[in-house]
Amino acid sequence: MQRTEISSLGEFALIKRLTRDFPIQHESTRRGVGDDAAVIAYPEGLQTLVTTDLLLEGIHFDLTYTPLRHLGYKAAVGSFSDIYAMNGHPQQLTCSVGVSARFAVEDLEELYAGIRLACGRYGVDLVGGDTSASLTGLCISITCLGAAREEEIVYRSGAQPTDLICVSGNLGAAYMGLQLLEREKRVFAGEKGDFEPDFAEHEYILERQLRPEARQDIILALREKGLRPTSMIDSSDGLASELLHIATESGVGVRIYEERLPIDIETHRMAEELNMSTTTVAMNGGEDFELIFTIPLAELDRLKELDGIHIIGHVTSAGQGCYLVTPDGAELRLRAQGWPDEAEE
Amino acid sequence: MQRTEISSLGEFALIKRLTRDFPIQHESTRRGVGDDAAVIAYPEGLQTLVTTDLLLEGIHFDLTYTPLRHLGYKAAVGSFSDIYAMNGHPQQLTCSVGVSARFAVEDLEELYAGIRLACGRYGVDLVGGDTSASLTGLCISITCLGAAREEEIVYRSGAQPTDLICVSGNLGAAYMGLQLLEREKRVFAGEKGDFEPDFAEHEYILERQLRPEARQDIILALREKGLRPTSMIDSSDGLASELLHIATESGVGVRIYEERLPIDIETHRMAEELNMSTTTVAMNGGEDFELIFTIPLAELDRLKELDGIHIIGHVTSAGQGCYLVTPDGAELRLRAQGWPDEAEE
Repeated sequence: MQRTEISSLGEFALIKRLTRDFPIQHESTRRGVGDDAAVIAYPEGLQTLVTTDLLLEGIHFDLTYTPLRHLGYKAAVGSFSDIYAMNGHPQQLTCSVGVSARFAVEDLEELYAGIRLACGRYGVDLVGGDTSASLTGLCISITCLGAAREEEIVYRSGAQPTDLICVSGNLGAAYMGLQLLEREKRVFAGEKGDFEPDFAEHEYILERQLRPEARQDIILALREKGLRPTSMIDSSDGLASELLHIATESGVGVRIYEERLPIDIETHRMAEELNMSTTTVAMNGGEDFELIFTIPLAELDRLKELDGIHIIGHVTSAGQGCYLVTPDGAELRLRAQGWPDEAEE
Repeated sequence: MQRTEISSLGEFALIKRLTRDFPIQHESTRRGVGDDAAVIAYPEGLQTLVTTDLLLEGIHFDLTYTPLRHLGYKAAVGSFSDIYAMNGHPQQLTCSVGVSARFAVEDLEELYAGIRLACGRYGVDLVGGDTSASLTGLCISITCLGAAREEEIVYRSGAQPTDLICVSGNLGAAYMGLQLLEREKRVFAGEKGDFEPDFAEHEYILERQLRPEARQDIILALREKGLRPTSMIDSSDGLASELLHIATESGVGVRIYEERLPIDIETHRMAEELNMSTTTVAMNGGEDFELIFTIPLAELDRLKELDGIHIIGHVTSAGQGCYLVTPDGAELRLRAQGWPDEAEE
């Protein structure tokens, strides 16, 4: 593969090259890349949602097994997921990258190809960003702007006792994908000759780790049914941690049921292979980008008409605490183990 | 000084502690820190400006001589400067930090104290951000949102032939401050015993490097006089580079005059001490956060009523190119040397 040194282009030519194939899709994007700031004008009545993420090599991703294109896609999608978790729609994205000398222009083009794919698929405009040198690997900063009508925005703070607690898709798959990749990396490090990583029958969990999707489909389906969650959050830090956020912000308790946790067969199989508890994986595994939300009990019938949504428990009063109930009736207090790599060294 | 390990708090408690003393100042900030995204609602008729910066230790700042409080202040102010350069007003800020194990909670509190000072002084709300581990030093990602009426926004692209080219304040001071700090760092590295860095009579350039201000005052003064620049940019990458941006985006040429470059006496003195050309310093030194803008010739009289603004040249047609004219009439073509640390390794 060709290798063009970043220094041979200079910052401004590089940004121009990286961002040239991003079409502007929204009328609200008045000015994108190329001025001191982007200019955005949402139609009257829409509020602006803004979320930002910082992704660091060696902490949030490992380039040993993460193709740059996938990394770009995932960075963008993770950001969109935060906007969907507010019941909004992502519209604009900025991306800044710091890169050390081991990266070539072609590497950055791969990263941006992934971002472009995500932007195209979710209908988001790239409107800004810059590149700079880094002493130590790759560093990605992503900011996403989204739009929502005031009355549609869903906070973490609106859950009410007796609300149903729902989860989209399934839990723990991305984390199991990560564990598989880490295992194969360790095996690879011990190998001398040719090495073929063993990913057979693990395609689903790998995809969940390496090329996740944000649940735009759930947001659209809820809207179509006229269902508005009372509270919502995305599962980037794991179910337990996210439920505790909802409980704290809403001033309520939660009770969820172990046998109701949606877990894919591949997640089960991988957890077994690694001697891990499937429940722990589902409760604490991060990066699933599923939506966790609460819906008034009165909406149960309409809720049941939706595909891919699982009712895992219900909201209680704050005094009743936050618990996972096992099939034999034991009650385990939820703890925010969270995603083990954040703010912990 | 007390040292609280970041790991002893956990990510969520840390963010809560760092952001607790940031009052919300704007009615437009509907939700700040603490949900999946911040929610912002500007009054009808205002458009949203968004700018993002990524600051990496060892590339954009050196903690040997940069106090964390100053770094926080400067990071925020640099971001505000981009919004002013659009003729807008900064309103909301998000800040994400990656920190390695050598940083304590108290260090981050210093950084945030600087951000808080800047937010207070410029009237900006902190609305989001997160902290994560980093393998290698400090990494700061800043995003600023600003508001402006559509008809007030000034792009890089509006300069017209015969417009006057103006610069606020003076140029090259921040760069000379940096060179002084770098020199004293080298001297310090060679010293064995007690060492007292020699900063006497260099207070101004040090302040320009370590605690710069954004030119909110110029934006307000222009508005008060009813003056709207045809194009504008801030001088974060150096005058030559910024003028070339205006020329390219506006499809014009520029001609500026060496003897008109505003240069402080301390900048002159430091350049002399270091055997550097003062003109080169003024043309290429970055981080001054001054405003560079163009004003129609017909507004000359009103422009002259403003303090602290220097007319350094005029806009020409594109065919006439971009030149610096020396006192003896020689014409030097502008080159975008830029800020030497960006995208060059």
